[in-house]
Amino acid sequence: MSVTVEELIAAIEPLNEKAMEAARVRQGKLAIPPGSLGKLEDAAVRLAGISGRLRYDITRCRIIVMAADNGIIEEGIGSAPRTVTAAQAANMTRYLTGMSSMAHYFGDEVRVVDLGIADPYDAPRVIDRRIAPGTKNFIHEPAMTREQAVEAILTGEEMAKKAKEENISVIGVGEMGIGNTTTSSAVLCALTGLSVEQVTGRGGGINDAAFLHKKEVIQTGLDKHKPDRNDPIDVLSKVGGFDLAAMCGVFLGAARYRLPVVIDGFISIVAALCAARLCPTAKEYMFPSHASYEIGYARAAEELGLEPWFLLNMRLGEGSGCPLAFRVLEAACAFTNNMATFDEASIDDGYLDEIREKDCYTV
Amino acid sequence: MSVTVEELIAAIEPLNEKAMEAARVRQGKLAIPPGSLGKLEDAAVRLAGISGRLRYDITRCRIIVMAADNGIIEEGIGSAPRTVTAAQAANMTRYLTGMSSMAHYFGDEVRVVDLGIADPYDAPRVIDRRIAPGTKNFIHEPAMTREQAVEAILTGEEMAKKAKEENISVIGVGEMGIGNTTTSSAVLCALTGLSVEQVTGRGGGINDAAFLHKKEVIQTGLDKHKPDRNDPIDVLSKVGGFDLAAMCGVFLGAARYRLPVVIDGFISIVAALCAARLCPTAKEYMFPSHASYEIGYARAAEELGLEPWFLLNMRLGEGSGCPLAFRVLEAACAFTNNMATFDEASIDDGYLDEIREKDCYTV
Repeated sequence: MSVTVEELIAAIEPLNEKAMEAARVRQGKLAIPPGSLGKLEDAAVRLAGISGRLRYDITRCRIIVMAADNGIIEEGIGSAPRTVTAAQAANMTRYLTGMSSMAHYFGDEVRVVDLGIADPYDAPRVIDRRIAPGTKNFIHEPAMTREQAVEAILTGEEMAKKAKEENISVIGVGEMGIGNTTTSSAVLCALTGLSVEQVTGRGGGINDAAFLHKKEVIQTGLDKHKPDRNDPIDVLSKVGGFDLAAMCGVFLGAARYRLPVVIDGFISIVAALCAARLCPTAKEYMFPSHASYEIGYARAAEELGLEPWFLLNMRLGEGSGCPLAFRVLEAACAFTNNMATFDEASIDDGYLDEIREKDCYTV
Repeated sequence: MSVTVEELIAAIEPLNEKAMEAARVRQGKLAIPPGSLGKLEDAAVRLAGISGRLRYDITRCRIIVMAADNGIIEEGIGSAPRTVTAAQAANMTRYLTGMSSMAHYFGDEVRVVDLGIADPYDAPRVIDRRIAPGTKNFIHEPAMTREQAVEAILTGEEMAKKAKEENISVIGVGEMGIGNTTTSSAVLCALTGLSVEQVTGRGGGINDAAFLHKKEVIQTGLDKHKPDRNDPIDVLSKVGGFDLAAMCGVFLGAARYRLPVVIDGFISIVAALCAARLCPTAKEYMFPSHASYEIGYARAAEELGLEPWFLLNMRLGEGSGCPLAFRVLEAACAFTNNMATFDEASIDDGYLDEIREKDCYTV
C-alpha cells in the first residue's frame, strides 16, 4: 500500500501494448466479420492490455461498496433519512438490497467498507475503516480535512490491493450514503466548471422544493469554499464525501494493481473522473456499465470520453450496474477464449480481404 | 401445433393484468426508491404478466437459430460465400461461433433449425425442417410460395412449443443465412414504406460498389413484386427468407405458449415486426437486447415502440445479443425474488410518500 497519493499515482503504468496487439491479431482470425462484436472486442483487447495475457479468465467478481454519511443532509437535501445508510450497508452484506440481491444471484462478491457511517448497525461483515462519523456540513465548513480525503483514497487503494491478492478477476465500485448525489454534483461542478443546473438531479427522489434547495445548497458550498479544479483532493475534501474519495482510491488502486474496474452510476462515475484527473492513465483500466438516469451521469461520461453499455433507466446506485457489466466482460472473454478461428471453422477467409478495404465498415 | 397461421394468432392472449398489478404492488414494497431499477422493474412486471406468477425463476434459456440460404445472393450482395451458412450452422451446434461460444459460457442452450441450407454439412444436432435448398432469387421470382412461408412460420411455432414443453424459461431468436440483411431490409421497406436508403446497411461488410448494388437489388425486388404491406405473409414470401419467416413464427409461438422471447439484432427485429403486424399482442412477450449497428435496426425498433437495452456496436447476428439479454432478465428476477422489503430491511418507509408525489420522478 502506498503512503501517499503521489506514490500511488507514480506506480500506475499504462496497458501492455504488445498484449493488446497480439489480442487484435488473434481476433482477426476468429470466424466473425471484423468488428462485428463491437465493444465486446474492444473490451477483450483491453483485458489483454491490463493482464498482459491473451486469454483472460473471469472467475471471481467483487463489488466494493464505500459507505459513509454526509453532513450536508442536515440541509434537508436527502431523499431518505440518514439511518438508511447504516441499514442498507448492513443489508448489503446479507445480499438483501437491490444491487446485492443481483450480485448474489450471479455469484459476485460484495464487500462493504464503512468510511464513516453515523448511525449504529449490527453487521460484522462490514469492514471498519471509519474516519469520522460522517463528514461535516459543507454549507458551514469543508466536508473533511485534506488528510481525511487522503486517508479515504488510500483505503480505496487498500481494497483494490486486497482484491488483487485474493485473485479477484474484476472489481466494481459501488456506494451507500444518503446525500451523495448532492456531494457528487458539487464535485462534478468543481472539477468541470459545469453549472449546478446542468449536473444536478433528484437522486433517490425529492419534490420540487427540496430539489430547488438541493441546487442552492450545492451552489453555496461551491461559492464558499472555491475548490481548486486542478486539485481533485481539494475538491473532494471541500465538497465531497468519504465514499467518493474512497471510490476514487479504488479506481487508482485498480490501475496500480492492474485490475479491470467497472464504473456504476452517477456517484461512481464522478469518483472515476476524480481518479482520471489525478492520473489519466487510470482511465485505461475502467469499464462502463449503465447510463444512470441521474442527469449528471452523461456529463461526467462525456468528460471521461466514455460511452455506457446499458440503457436501463436505472438510478439506484449501490453498484447495481456492476453485476451486468461483469457479464459483458465475461461474454467478451468467452468469445475470445472459446470460439473457432476461420481455419478451425472450415471457412475460407479470403473474402475478408474485401471487407477489410477502407470503404467498408471500419473497426 | 396450429394448422394455420390464423389459428396460431387466434390462440394468442394478452398478459395477465392481475399478476402484473400484484407484481407492481410487491415492487412498491421493496427497499429501493420507486422506479430506481428502471427497465429491470418493467421487465419483472411483464414476466409476471406472461407467467401469471409473482415470482419467475429463470433456470433454462434457449436460443433458437433459424438457418437458411437466400437465392438473392446470386446477385453478389453477400459479405461471404454461401457455404458459410452451412459451416456456421454446424459450428453453432458445437458452440464454436461468436454467439454460441457466449451462450455456452453462460449455460444457455442453442438449437439450430435448418429451414433450407443449400450446401452440405455434417452436424447431426442441426434440426432438419428443410423446405427447399434455399429460396429463389427475388430479382426474378418470389423468394418462396405463400405455402412455404406458412410452413416456415409454423415451424417457428413448433420450436416455441417444444421449448415450452421442455420447461425453457426464456427463448431468444437468432439466425444464420448469408444474404439475410438484404432480405430483412427488403421486408422492412415493404412493411413500413421506408426507403431502401433508410434501412439498408453493409451487413457483414461489403465495399461501396457491392453496397450500391445491394440497394438496387432490393429496390428491384420491391418494384417487381409489389408486396402488400398489410399482408406480412405476402411480404415474407415475395422478398423474405425461410429464416425470417420461421423467426416470425417463433415470436408468435412464444406469445401463444406464454414464453418471454428476446429479440437479437436487425434480422431478428424485422422478424419481430412481422409477428407484431400479424398479431399486435405478440409484442407484449418480446424483450429487446442490443441496438444493432446495422442502420435498419433503429427504424424497426421505432416501428415496434421498443428501446434497446445495450449499446455495444454489435452487428454479428446469430442471436449474439441474447445471452446478455437473458442476464438482464435474470437480474430482474433476482431483485424481485430475493431482495428485502422495507419492513424486512428495517427501514421506515414513511419518507416514500413524498417521493411518490407527482412532482418527483415518475415511475
